[in-house]
Amino acid sequence: MIEYRNLRVALLGAGSVGSQVAKLLLEHGDELAARVGASLEIVGIAVRDETATRDVDLPRHLYTTDAESLILGADIVVELMGGVEPARSYVLLALNSGADVITANKALLATHGPELFDAAEQVGAQLYYEAAVAGAIPIIRPLRDSLAGDRVNRILGIVNGTTNFILDRMDVDGDTLEDALATATELGYAEADPTADIGGYDAAQKAAILASLAFHTTVPIESVYREGITSVNRAQVEAARANGSVIKLLAICERIVHPVTGVEGVSARVYPALISRTHPLAAVHGAHNAVFVQAAAAGDLMFYGAGAGGVETASAVLGDLVSAARRHVVGGPGVAESTHAQLPVLDIGQVITRYQITLEVVDQPGVLATVARILSDGGVSVETVQQSIAGTPVPALPGQELGAATATLVIGTHEAEEAALAATVEALSASDVVSAVASVLRVEGS
Amino acid sequence: MIEYRNLRVALLGAGSVGSQVAKLLLEHGDELAARVGASLEIVGIAVRDETATRDVDLPRHLYTTDAESLILGADIVVELMGGVEPARSYVLLALNSGADVITANKALLATHGPELFDAAEQVGAQLYYEAAVAGAIPIIRPLRDSLAGDRVNRILGIVNGTTNFILDRMDVDGDTLEDALATATELGYAEADPTADIGGYDAAQKAAILASLAFHTTVPIESVYREGITSVNRAQVEAARANGSVIKLLAICERIVHPVTGVEGVSARVYPALISRTHPLAAVHGAHNAVFVQAAAAGDLMFYGAGAGGVETASAVLGDLVSAARRHVVGGPGVAESTHAQLPVLDIGQVITRYQITLEVVDQPGVLATVARILSDGGVSVETVQQSIAGTPVPALPGQELGAATATLVIGTHEAEEAALAATVEALSASDVVSAVASVLRVEGS
Repeated sequence: MIEYRNLRVALLGAGSVGSQVAKLLLEHGDELAARVGASLEIVGIAVRDETATRDVDLPRHLYTTDAESLILGADIVVELMGGVEPARSYVLLALNSGADVITANKALLATHGPELFDAAEQVGAQLYYEAAVAGAIPIIRPLRDSLAGDRVNRILGIVNGTTNFILDRMDVDGDTLEDALATATELGYAEADPTADIGGYDAAQKAAILASLAFHTTVPIESVYREGITSVNRAQVEAARANGSVIKLLAICERIVHPVTGVEGVSARVYPALISRTHPLAAVHGAHNAVFVQAAAAGDLMFYGAGAGGVETASAVLGDLVSAARRHVVGGPGVAESTHAQLPVLDIGQVITRYQITLEVVDQPGVLATVARILSDGGVSVETVQQSIAGTPVPALPGQELGAATATLVIGTHEAEEAALAATVEALSASDVVSAVASVLRVEGS
Repeated sequence: MIEYRNLRVALLGAGSVGSQVAKLLLEHGDELAARVGASLEIVGIAVRDETATRDVDLPRHLYTTDAESLILGADIVVELMGGVEPARSYVLLALNSGADVITANKALLATHGPELFDAAEQVGAQLYYEAAVAGAIPIIRPLRDSLAGDRVNRILGIVNGTTNFILDRMDVDGDTLEDALATATELGYAEADPTADIGGYDAAQKAAILASLAFHTTVPIESVYREGITSVNRAQVEAARANGSVIKLLAICERIVHPVTGVEGVSARVYPALISRTHPLAAVHGAHNAVFVQAAAAGDLMFYGAGAGGVETASAVLGDLVSAARRHVVGGPGVAESTHAQLPVLDIGQVITRYQITLEVVDQPGVLATVARILSDGGVSVETVQQSIAGTPVPALPGQELGAATATLVIGTHEAEEAALAATVEALSASDVVSAVASVLRVEGS
């Protein structure tokens, strides 16, 4: 058993994200320790007051109302409280004490980002915030690191899942705005007071964060132009559809060179806009998020995934936590690739997949029964069969009369081990009733 | 003028990626220095021999055939030669001398990854390889860092642009494999000898790299099952289309728990497979790449962009170069967010965009001319006009007879400053011939 150095992690906030982070840390502690080279110990979960909800699956002794003491005893502080105060004071306390901070707090970053980044720089601490924009989708790290040698010209983001859900319902299901909002509320996609989402305020905070990062400049939240979706109506949605477009609430960050003066500036704005249905963003449905980035050298990139949700956002928080912890261990991330898992690499025969098998068969009674028996003997379960009679008889094959009529069978199988599937195709191929195995393709992506 | 510390960068290889990296480094040197906090000086570009092509836009004195001396005098070595030897020896020489190394060499990583990562770890150097998989698309950093606290269960990747181009032509244009390959060769998407691409060898190397990284284990290239696209035919492509599917060459990395024994293993494999047209990967056209990742907490993620090309791949190399350089400067990446650019943030009025304006107008001669004059006076140029006569007259408006027939005009504008567009909408709204401005939407994503 390897003895790891211990890193003390303080969680501030015990909502849906905070609880998930705590659970994943406790459940996967050993695996994370192996990846990091240090144990991540939760030293406490700060809650607002004695009446705050406590997750029954988490040890009660972890909860505390004394956030300050918790912060001052931690190596890494994870702020998941939301809102500006007291989150701002706590983050500053943590940074000033030399702790690294991870936050998912877009409101805090959009309003006090420069103050927090300065505080971190003063003491050489780090501030991570992958979870603050687009939930589980890695967008902060790609912009900060992967595109650090490039020049970002434009970002078009679907960064609010609630409004995308509503607009998608209006487009796909023909709902009115009111009906779509009601459904969103029912399904838990919209808050009781949906103003932050449908008014575009949430997206505007994310636009400020993305623009600041992408353009290496300060974009205050006050300078983000904002329109929500409340004035979008069915007629507009239908007209857009008729024109091959769709209405999406976009957060747009853009580098603009004035056509006459040549002066360079940046714009961050949020509004419902028409985009062509051929644009990759048009295919972002439901409550999903996606960020489309145009860079001078890299060209067009898109990052797509779940934009919210407790466990999804917790994934982004934990990624930041591992980065922060690795920095404590080796003084930088990018430890030489860790291969601690030592998992066996399976042979193709052990892979579990589905097949689509197209057979040319003799068109006579009992053929389907024979084929079905061969599949069943091979341990392969059939999901679908399509049969079509070929228009013209095929040339004679051994064991078959000249010009016998043939039919085509397209068989979709359930999941099975590749070895069983391959052996079954062999058996089919050898069968008298099968004149040819026309096609064998695996089916993926279910 | 700020005086920066100097970091010595050696380039190995002067092909399309190497030349682009050198050009971007020379062109954007000041901007990169500000982002990094150090100057990135190209100390030389190693070429194979005296006859190697030299880019006319790059200073001749940078070229050298003495790669060893160049490597030993560098802080950071960028290996863009391709192939296993002498790339492997040079990368080991660089790492052993303590230099950080950036490589885009998938063949080298797929065959000698563990040896190189071990060498880097021994001396505390870093090996970066974002450009080795999926060109400009950030996928290595998200897997290594962003998802480091999560558990990746499956990766489905379209990681070879040539084969995706060919399969897309067969699907969209009805080409045969031979015709599509000929077109790919003509357009420069396929090499003179296309075996590495259409045989699936290139994709298999990328699958080995992705699987090793995602599952924290060693996946040797020899254990990657591989089928190319050479046996894919028109009949299969058409049958797929008829069934609501499409055939894509997929690199698949999967964590598999044996259904009976519960033993965990991983699989890496490449083959043409059917996926549903509703899957996000089905919408990846032409030579584009995309990597679809399924993680336990994060859910489904997709990363999309250009998979190859000199300047696109150079973007990924430069991102790694900035990461490596930042490590030299501050002992870690994630410097507190740099806001060195200090760009002005533009007011919404200065944004350049397009409008789609829907007007209810009085249906009488001369209306279109009046509307067109108002637009032209406002400096707004019209791209499209659609007119439809409303079935029922609208109620009387001031200055209009009761029950006058109305028509709907849908005007699409060319790009103009937002302020001009907004003022023009005001003017239209005030005009006698316009009964109502029914809808104003911006058009984005062109």
